[in-house]
Amino acid sequence: MRLFNYLFIIVCISSSFSQNSTNNDLIFIDNIYDEALSNGKSYQWLDYLSNQIGGRLSGSINYDRSVKWGKEELDSIGLDSVWLQPVMVPKWVRGAPEYAHIETTPGNTISVPIAALGGSISTPSIGISARVIEVKSFNELRELGKDSVSGKIIFYNRPMDDTIINTFQAYSGSVNQRTNGATEAAKLGAVGVIVRSMTTTLDDYPHTGSMYYDGLKLNQRIPAAAISTNGAELLSSMLSLNSNIKFFFRQNSKNYPDVLTHSVIGEIKGSKKPEEIIVVGGHLDSWDLGDGSHDDGAGIVQSMEVLRIFKNLNYVPKRTIRIVLFANEENGLRGGNKYAQEARKNNEKHFFALESDAGGFTPRGFSFDTSEKEFKSLKKFEELFKNYGVNNFFLGGSGADIGPLKDGIVILAGLRPDPQRYFDFHHAASDTFDKINKRELELGAAAMASLVFLIDNYKL
Amino acid sequence: MRLFNYLFIIVCISSSFSQNSTNNDLIFIDNIYDEALSNGKSYQWLDYLSNQIGGRLSGSINYDRSVKWGKEELDSIGLDSVWLQPVMVPKWVRGAPEYAHIETTPGNTISVPIAALGGSISTPSIGISARVIEVKSFNELRELGKDSVSGKIIFYNRPMDDTIINTFQAYSGSVNQRTNGATEAAKLGAVGVIVRSMTTTLDDYPHTGSMYYDGLKLNQRIPAAAISTNGAELLSSMLSLNSNIKFFFRQNSKNYPDVLTHSVIGEIKGSKKPEEIIVVGGHLDSWDLGDGSHDDGAGIVQSMEVLRIFKNLNYVPKRTIRIVLFANEENGLRGGNKYAQEARKNNEKHFFALESDAGGFTPRGFSFDTSEKEFKSLKKFEELFKNYGVNNFFLGGSGADIGPLKDGIVILAGLRPDPQRYFDFHHAASDTFDKINKRELELGAAAMASLVFLIDNYKL
Repeated sequence: MRLFNYLFIIVCISSSFSQNSTNNDLIFIDNIYDEALSNGKSYQWLDYLSNQIGGRLSGSINYDRSVKWGKEELDSIGLDSVWLQPVMVPKWVRGAPEYAHIETTPGNTISVPIAALGGSISTPSIGISARVIEVKSFNELRELGKDSVSGKIIFYNRPMDDTIINTFQAYSGSVNQRTNGATEAAKLGAVGVIVRSMTTTLDDYPHTGSMYYDGLKLNQRIPAAAISTNGAELLSSMLSLNSNIKFFFRQNSKNYPDVLTHSVIGEIKGSKKPEEIIVVGGHLDSWDLGDGSHDDGAGIVQSMEVLRIFKNLNYVPKRTIRIVLFANEENGLRGGNKYAQEARKNNEKHFFALESDAGGFTPRGFSFDTSEKEFKSLKKFEELFKNYGVNNFFLGGSGADIGPLKDGIVILAGLRPDPQRYFDFHHAASDTFDKINKRELELGAAAMASLVFLIDNYKL
Repeated sequence: MRLFNYLFIIVCISSSFSQNSTNNDLIFIDNIYDEALSNGKSYQWLDYLSNQIGGRLSGSINYDRSVKWGKEELDSIGLDSVWLQPVMVPKWVRGAPEYAHIETTPGNTISVPIAALGGSISTPSIGISARVIEVKSFNELRELGKDSVSGKIIFYNRPMDDTIINTFQAYSGSVNQRTNGATEAAKLGAVGVIVRSMTTTLDDYPHTGSMYYDGLKLNQRIPAAAISTNGAELLSSMLSLNSNIKFFFRQNSKNYPDVLTHSVIGEIKGSKKPEEIIVVGGHLDSWDLGDGSHDDGAGIVQSMEVLRIFKNLNYVPKRTIRIVLFANEENGLRGGNKYAQEARKNNEKHFFALESDAGGFTPRGFSFDTSEKEFKSLKKFEELFKNYGVNNFFLGGSGADIGPLKDGIVILAGLRPDPQRYFDFHHAASDTFDKINKRELELGAAAMASLVFLIDNYKL
């Protein structure tokens, strides 16, 4: 029950909508919210996924446990069909806990928290000890040149810009240090790289994430690790006092051959245009350090909740509503690529795809990846979300897993929750279930279900 | 540094603004945000207030410690003047920790967490044991009548409505159980009341808050306590199995005569219209159970940050910018009343007052208590806040402490942060510094400073 003046809204919208929004539509959105907030299952689902399964890196047994769980839960909702889509994924294993220290003077060491970056090779079993050079950018690195860099550990320490309001934008501005830092440093003869964690907080958690050895031969590759922001501040401060200090780190991460696993798919068949598919989803895999509650357990259970709500409210969709729990977003995007490839092979017609992969925080809007003309038409729905605080619709971006579906026809969209806390936990051991707020998670699911409902009735 | 298209914004606004928004204004707002996010002091201040001072109920020594701290910190900012405003406040003391249990069968007890409501009298020192009647409303209570209620403990168990998006509205719909429940039950001969905590979560924290014995004589008063929501669910479930179970509770809270304390005030004198005062503030007192980080430590340090930012950016305000750290919002509003009374006595002309007292979460907008005409004019500023996500300006409500200033002339406003988590911690032992996110707190301070800056240049 909300103070929702249907008549007022209808007056506002009827003048601008090309399709008819009826009073019943608005009441149905209200029912969606009531269902999510009063009888929602997303929080309970996430509790299980996070606390009983936990971190679920692609290729791990835990990932396969989450596939089994996802299929069972989708079966329990009573969808028309649920199936697994086979996909080959990279298998990278962290191995024994990493160790690192700063050697301030010979024999005097201060340990700092590090974590191997996903995809990184191991150090030699006795570790690496070398002098450290701090840089903020690849340009700065290249200006140093081979003579300076050779034999050193490169320490990338450009923080995320904390004055940027949208933290995802700040992340984009720094993450190349993590993804490409090892390759760039290896080209100049560095023996390892240490990367400041991609987070706006100062804390003791190393934040992992994917890195790539683009084009580097096996014998040119060097190990790469994330260091906590507090560790990075300490190291930087030590270096400013004495540029000759050494850094030691040891990790025994390893890449194995690809393994077979699955994405989980389920659907409710459309009653009027079953051939037009609306996808809702997130990625089932997570990094191994935390339990992946925000990244992307939240998106998984919110997507499941969308279909549960429809079933529970006896909503009969016009188009086919499909949920995809994608495999391997974090270190390969193989699930998303495979899904799009199969869709094309089977001549499937995707009408709309919505991903939730930005955390389980208070939803504030949706981003759309579509034409300006289409967006202008979709933006008319914005007003309907005002009473729910989800009325920031903007053009640009959707979600990594649904990206490969892009074909100039399908409308892609992403749920946009409040972004301030996301990188506090992102890819770190602190991404755990206790960081989830039940209402915020449920509001996200309700917003997604409401948008999917409107899209299902859009341009019929 | 933000992706902020000044030209675009100016084009949007110049057509609708009555006053001239210059490029410099927009750059200044950007500078405010940069200052708050890069060099902000609000988080550090709150760390001290929460962790070194802690809970600071009116009339306590801890409250006086916070007055001393507030004055010292305002002095350190370099304001034109800082002073204390004397105010007499109620002194209520919780006393020894409360204890309560449900007696399921004679001798079999299950303890449940309770906390005396602020203002409540003590139980007899041996406690109260009586049969319990659960009600959801005063109507239900009155229908039971004197014969049923007499000698019983009344258990108010109407939850906050979790389907209401704005949790403050849900709070308003339930809080009369806490404020007036004891009075209503006492009239029918009840011996005590237990009130379900005002929170949307299910947890083990009793949430205290003020209650009043309106018009009840001393010998008619009965003790009142909050029970945690988990405790309330347990008690309700027990009662549904056996309506004859007994409840026992013991508390030794006490009301003392009023004591003298202070609000803290500081100001930067206006350069053009010094006689027109702009107030920014929050309340310095808190409940005793937590450390009052969200309620209202956040509002205090955000208000302080507004003035620090202006000083640090060398901004010379046209009007007088005054900060008030109000005494005794929680159980008396004496600080707010005294401030307004003195303002009238001294013929002060208040132009604008802004309060932050809704938690230190991501700011989402401002509420205004003013005429519709004035609001229409103020709403034009909304567009300027869009890139900062603070663009929900609405008419209705400001803050409790500034409310008494209302005179048909002054414009009152309140910062409106995201409301989903607020009642998780409100008035409970869980309202602690670890629940504060640095960026969210700083964004609130920046939003306040930006609005105050615009108002300072408004209608000059």
